[in-house]
Amino acid sequence: MSQWIWKFGEFECYHNMLLHNRRTEYGYPEPPVWKIYSPDSLVQFKKTFYTDGGTVNIHALGVHSVVLEGKTFLDNKKLQGVTSFELERGTHTLVIRISNTETFPALYVSGVVESDGSWEADDFTGTWEKVGTWDALTDSSKTPDHFPFVYEPISPEKISRQEEGILYDFGKETFARVKVRKESQESAQIRFGESLPEAMDPEWCVVRYEMGKDSQQMNCPATAFRYVWLSDPDAVITAEKESVPLTRQGTFRTSDERLNQIYDVAAYTFELNSREFFLDGIKRDRWVWSGDVYQSLFVTHSLYRDSDIERRTLTSLGRKSPIKTHINGIVDYSFLWVMGIREYYLEYGDTEYLKQIFPRLAELIHFCRGRIDADGLLRGKEGDWIFIDWAEMDKTGALLGEQVLYAKALQVYAAICELLGKDDEGARKEAEMLVSKIMDLFWDYERGVFIDSYESGWNIVTRHNNILAYLFLPLSETQKESIYQNVICNENVPAITTPYFRFFENQVHMLAGHIENMVASIREYYGAMLDFGATTFFERFDEEQSGDEHYAMYGHPYEMSLCHAWSASPVYLLPSCTLGIRRLDTAWRSFEIRPELGDLEYAEGSVPVPGGCIRVRVDRNGVTVNSDISGGTLFYEGRPWVIEAGKTLTVTSPG
Amino acid sequence: MSQWIWKFGEFECYHNMLLHNRRTEYGYPEPPVWKIYSPDSLVQFKKTFYTDGGTVNIHALGVHSVVLEGKTFLDNKKLQGVTSFELERGTHTLVIRISNTETFPALYVSGVVESDGSWEADDFTGTWEKVGTWDALTDSSKTPDHFPFVYEPISPEKISRQEEGILYDFGKETFARVKVRKESQESAQIRFGESLPEAMDPEWCVVRYEMGKDSQQMNCPATAFRYVWLSDPDAVITAEKESVPLTRQGTFRTSDERLNQIYDVAAYTFELNSREFFLDGIKRDRWVWSGDVYQSLFVTHSLYRDSDIERRTLTSLGRKSPIKTHINGIVDYSFLWVMGIREYYLEYGDTEYLKQIFPRLAELIHFCRGRIDADGLLRGKEGDWIFIDWAEMDKTGALLGEQVLYAKALQVYAAICELLGKDDEGARKEAEMLVSKIMDLFWDYERGVFIDSYESGWNIVTRHNNILAYLFLPLSETQKESIYQNVICNENVPAITTPYFRFFENQVHMLAGHIENMVASIREYYGAMLDFGATTFFERFDEEQSGDEHYAMYGHPYEMSLCHAWSASPVYLLPSCTLGIRRLDTAWRSFEIRPELGDLEYAEGSVPVPGGCIRVRVDRNGVTVNSDISGGTLFYEGRPWVIEAGKTLTVTSPG
Repeated sequence: MSQWIWKFGEFECYHNMLLHNRRTEYGYPEPPVWKIYSPDSLVQFKKTFYTDGGTVNIHALGVHSVVLEGKTFLDNKKLQGVTSFELERGTHTLVIRISNTETFPALYVSGVVESDGSWEADDFTGTWEKVGTWDALTDSSKTPDHFPFVYEPISPEKISRQEEGILYDFGKETFARVKVRKESQESAQIRFGESLPEAMDPEWCVVRYEMGKDSQQMNCPATAFRYVWLSDPDAVITAEKESVPLTRQGTFRTSDERLNQIYDVAAYTFELNSREFFLDGIKRDRWVWSGDVYQSLFVTHSLYRDSDIERRTLTSLGRKSPIKTHINGIVDYSFLWVMGIREYYLEYGDTEYLKQIFPRLAELIHFCRGRIDADGLLRGKEGDWIFIDWAEMDKTGALLGEQVLYAKALQVYAAICELLGKDDEGARKEAEMLVSKIMDLFWDYERGVFIDSYESGWNIVTRHNNILAYLFLPLSETQKESIYQNVICNENVPAITTPYFRFFENQVHMLAGHIENMVASIREYYGAMLDFGATTFFERFDEEQSGDEHYAMYGHPYEMSLCHAWSASPVYLLPSCTLGIRRLDTAWRSFEIRPELGDLEYAEGSVPVPGGCIRVRVDRNGVTVNSDISGGTLFYEGRPWVIEAGKTLTVTSPG
Repeated sequence: MSQWIWKFGEFECYHNMLLHNRRTEYGYPEPPVWKIYSPDSLVQFKKTFYTDGGTVNIHALGVHSVVLEGKTFLDNKKLQGVTSFELERGTHTLVIRISNTETFPALYVSGVVESDGSWEADDFTGTWEKVGTWDALTDSSKTPDHFPFVYEPISPEKISRQEEGILYDFGKETFARVKVRKESQESAQIRFGESLPEAMDPEWCVVRYEMGKDSQQMNCPATAFRYVWLSDPDAVITAEKESVPLTRQGTFRTSDERLNQIYDVAAYTFELNSREFFLDGIKRDRWVWSGDVYQSLFVTHSLYRDSDIERRTLTSLGRKSPIKTHINGIVDYSFLWVMGIREYYLEYGDTEYLKQIFPRLAELIHFCRGRIDADGLLRGKEGDWIFIDWAEMDKTGALLGEQVLYAKALQVYAAICELLGKDDEGARKEAEMLVSKIMDLFWDYERGVFIDSYESGWNIVTRHNNILAYLFLPLSETQKESIYQNVICNENVPAITTPYFRFFENQVHMLAGHIENMVASIREYYGAMLDFGATTFFERFDEEQSGDEHYAMYGHPYEMSLCHAWSASPVYLLPSCTLGIRRLDTAWRSFEIRPELGDLEYAEGSVPVPGGCIRVRVDRNGVTVNSDISGGTLFYEGRPWVIEAGKTLTVTSPG
C-alpha cells in the first residue's frame, strides 16, 4: 500500500516547528527558548524496482520533477511535472525531486511502484537514507503537512451566569477548538481556564482572546481548558475535542476505588498530552521536553504501545546537525533522550530505527564528550541548564545526578554502537572510568549515601541524586539497601514535590521490592490531588500548599500546568507492580509476572505486548494469567510457572 | 536611522531559497540540483544601550516577545507582544525573540533605540553574532520578505500577426512581468522567447504558460524574453520590467564604435543579471553559480561598485553549516567563492564582513582539506563535479586547474586568517607544498607548458589549465612568456568557446602586456555575437556554428542562455586595459593608470572608486586624468605622475 514518504525526520521537524511556535500567553505570542530547526525545502526520492509494466502516478507535496534512469530511456523533459505515465517491463530507477518552500517536500507514488519505507531520500548532500513514513498517512489526498487529528463535538456540563458574562464548565479538563458566535456589537473577551479562578481572572488568565466589535464569529485554536468564560452573556460556543486516535490497550482495576480512579485520571491526563508528540502539558507551553518524554515512553508502553508517536517524539527531539546545545538546553535532558532511545528499542527491538536515528545520536554524544572537563567530569558550561528537578540541591561544580546520567547515556550509546557494528570511539571505556570516579568522589562511606557535590564541602544528601544513582549505577546490594533506608525511607530528607521525580522514586520502591511503599506513595500523593478536585494530574503538587496556591507557578497565579504528562506514571507503575508484568528481554521475547497484592483484595488488568496483551488477575485465592505471547514465567508462591501463549494459566493460592 | 535587521545570512538564505525554487521549463517546475538551505524560524535579537528615556516601537516580521533586563525592571509578561512602550533613563538590555514559520524572523525598532548593524542575533545556539542589514530596507512597512524590486512599464517595438496568433517584439532582451488579457472563451498559449524561433516553437519554447478557457487575465511571473507570442491574436499584454535599482558609475567610449557597442551590450547584459544576487543568466535556471559570481565581482567593480549585491551573493553562496558538498556541487566553484571573498575585500577593505563570513569560509576550507588524497593532491570524490569549463580536457586523476585553484584558495584563507588574527591551522604551509608539487608534476620542461594531468600519460595541453596556472601560480617570467607564446598565441591549441574562460584568457593578455591581443579578441568574439544579432551576450558562442545552432545547448534547441552574466567581462576588461585604471592596494588606497591606446584614436571613461570616480581620457595628443581620490600614479610616456584628488592632470604626448 502506498504511503506518503519524506526525508527521514522532516515530517517531525515541520510539525515540531509549528507546535513550538504556537504558544501564546496573556493574549500574546510566546516563542520557544531553544533552537527550532526548519525543514528542508528540497529533497530527492529514489527507488530502483522491477515491473511488468504499467502506470505510475505521482502526487507531490510541493512541485516536482521526475527523472527516470536505467534500461528504459525516456526524454526527461517530457516527464517533468507529469503525474501519470507508463513504464515498460523492466528494471527502472525513478528519482523524483520535490521543492516546497512553504511546508516540506513529501511524495506519494501509486501504480506499478508504490511509495513506502523502502524508498530513499537525499537533501542533495549525497547522503541517501531510508525515508520516513507513517502508516496513518496512506491517503494521497491527505497531505502530511496537515497533522491527522480527529475532532469530536463535546458539550459543557453546566452553563451559568458569572460576573456579567457566561461560564461554560465542561466538567473536566479537555483540549478542544472552540467556535464563538455573538450577535452584540460590543467587543467580547473569551477566557479559557484549567481552573475556575483562572477563567475568571481578567489579568492572569493564560489563554484568552479578544473578539472585535464587528466580529460575529471567532475560531479559537485548540487549547486546554475545563472552563470557558465569555464577557458577552448571549454569546454561544461550540467545542470540538482535538486528538490523535490512539487505542488504549492497557487496563487496570483493583479492589481499591481510589487506585482505580488514579489510574483512570492518569490515563486521561496522558491521552490529552499524546498529540503530534508527547507534550509536557497541554496548556502553558505545549512543548516537547526530553525528560518528560522519557517517562512518557514507559506510560505509553503500558497504555497504547504505539510506536509511531514514540518515534515521532524521539526524532523531533533528536534535532538536526549541527548540534550546539543540549536538548531543551538541559544537560540531563540530553542524556534522558539517549536513554529514551534505549527504552524504545527494548520495547520494540526496532533496529531499523536505531540505524535511522544513529547519526543524530552520535552527534549528540560527540557534542557532550566535547564538554567534559580535564578531570573527566561533566560541569555545566555557559548556556547549559543543570535541571534534575524543581528542588533544592547542591549544584556546586560536578553534580552527582549529571555524572550518573552521563555514564548511563555513554553505556547506552556503546551498546547501540555494538548492536549496529559501529565503533563507539571509547565511549564504553569512558563510562566505566566515570562510574569508578563517581564511586570515589560521591559515595559517603560513613553515612552509606551519595552526596550531591564533592566540591562544595557541604556533603548535602538529596533524594534526587541518590535515586538516580540507585537506578543507573551498578551498586552492591548493601549500597542499595543503605540508600533505601537512609534516604528513601528517611523522613528527614525533604520529600519529592514533583510527579516527575515521584516516577523515579517509585521505580526505586519497585526495585527495592517495597511495592507497598510505592502503592502508599501513589495513593497519598495522587489521592491528594484528587481530593483537591483535579480531573487531570498537575505538573507539581506541594501538599504544604492550599487553595489557589496550587495553581501558581513561575511567579504567576495560573502558570502551573493542571494536565501534565509526567504525572501519568501510575499507568505504568501500578500494573508493573501489583500485577507484576515486566518485560525482561528486548521486544518481550521473555517476560515475568510477579503479582504483589499488598493490602488489596484483588487486582486485574492488562498490558499490551507485541501481537496482543498479557492479562493478569490476582486475588487472595490465586492468580490467573492469559497471554497472547509465549516467553513468560509466572512467579507465584515461591515457584515458577511457564506461560503458554493463548492458554489461560490459573494457580490457586494454597493459603 | 532604523533598519530591518535579521540574523546574519537569513535574508540571503530566504531569498536564495525562493530564487532557486522558482525555475520552470516547458511549463513544468524544475527544482534545483544542490542543497538549498532553509531560514531559521526562531531568532533572538539583543542590544544594550543607554537612553535618557522615551518610547520604543517594535515591528516584527513574525510574532515576537520582548524581554527587558538591566537596571530598569518591568514585568516581562506585560511587555510581551507590545509594539510601543516607555523606557526610563538608564542603561537597558533589550532582547526580542521573533518566531516566523512562513518567511523568516526580522526586526525593526525605532524610538530611543534603533535597530541597525550594532545589534546582535542568536538562533538559540548561544552564538551571538552581528546582525545582517541592508541600507535599502529602512521603511518599517516594507518588510524584508519582499525583495525591493522596482517596476517600470515597457512597450513592444513591434506587434505583428504570426501563425494564427500575435507576436510582440520588445526590440531587445528584457526581464519583465507580463499581464495577459483575453476575451475569447478559448484556451490560449503564451510563449516567451529570447529568440524569435524559440517564441514560435510550441514544443521547445522554454518559458510558457497555458491560459484556461474561462480565464480572462493571467499574471505571468517576471521572466526573460525579447519576444512574446500569444495564440489568441486578440489578446493584449502589458509588461513591466523588474529590476534592482543600481546606479551605473562606470563609463567607456572609444573611437571604435564596435567596442563601444560591446561595452554597452555587456553592461546591459550584466544589469539584467544583477538581481537578488548575481545570476548566471536570466532565462533558464536563474540560479547563483560561484564561478559566474567570481567574474561578476570584477564587472560590478567597474560598473556599479555596489557592495550590497556582492555581499548578498557571497553570503548566499556561503550556505550554512553543516557543509557536505562543494558549492554548486563543483569543486572549482568552492575555490572561486573563496577567491571572490578576496576580490570583495580588496575592493572595499571590509574587515567586518570578513568576520561575519569567516565561520562559513573556515568550514568550507575544512571540508576541502578533508577530501585531499594521501599524496596531498585533490581529486574529485563521488558527487563532485570537476568543471573548469565546457571544454575538452584531460581530467584523469588530479587535474592541474583544480590544484591551482585549491592552492590559491588556501593562500587566500591563510591571508584572511592572518588579517583576523586567527590560526590558519597550516593552510599556508599546505598551499606552499601544493604549489611545489604542481611544479614537479605538471610542468613540462621540454615544451615549457603545463599539462592537464600527469596521471594519464597523455601530456595533453589546454588553454584552460595553462591560463589558471598563469594567473594564480607564482611563475617565473620565463615560464609566463613560454606559456603565453606556446599556448595562448598557439593556434593549434583549441580556442576557448565560452565567454567565461575568455575572461581569464583576457586577464592573461593584460598581465602579459598584450593589450592589443585582448582588444582584438574582444572585438572578434563579442563582435561576432553582435553580427549574429545579439542584444545581450550569450552563455557561449561557437564561431564554427551558424543560424539557430547558436540557441541550442544541453541537447535542446533553446536552452542556451542568451543573456549571461559571465559574458559581461568587457565592462571590466576594456577600462582596465585601454584606460589602464587598476587598483593596487586594498580599497584603492593606491592605484595606477597605465593607458594603452593601441590602434584606437581615443578612449575615455570612468570607473567607480571609494567616494567617487576616476576619469581618464587618452588620445594621440596625451592623457587627462581626473580622480576624486588620491593615492594614484599615472604612468605615461615612460614616467610617473602623481595624481591629486580633485585636480585635473593633463600630460601631453611629446610625439
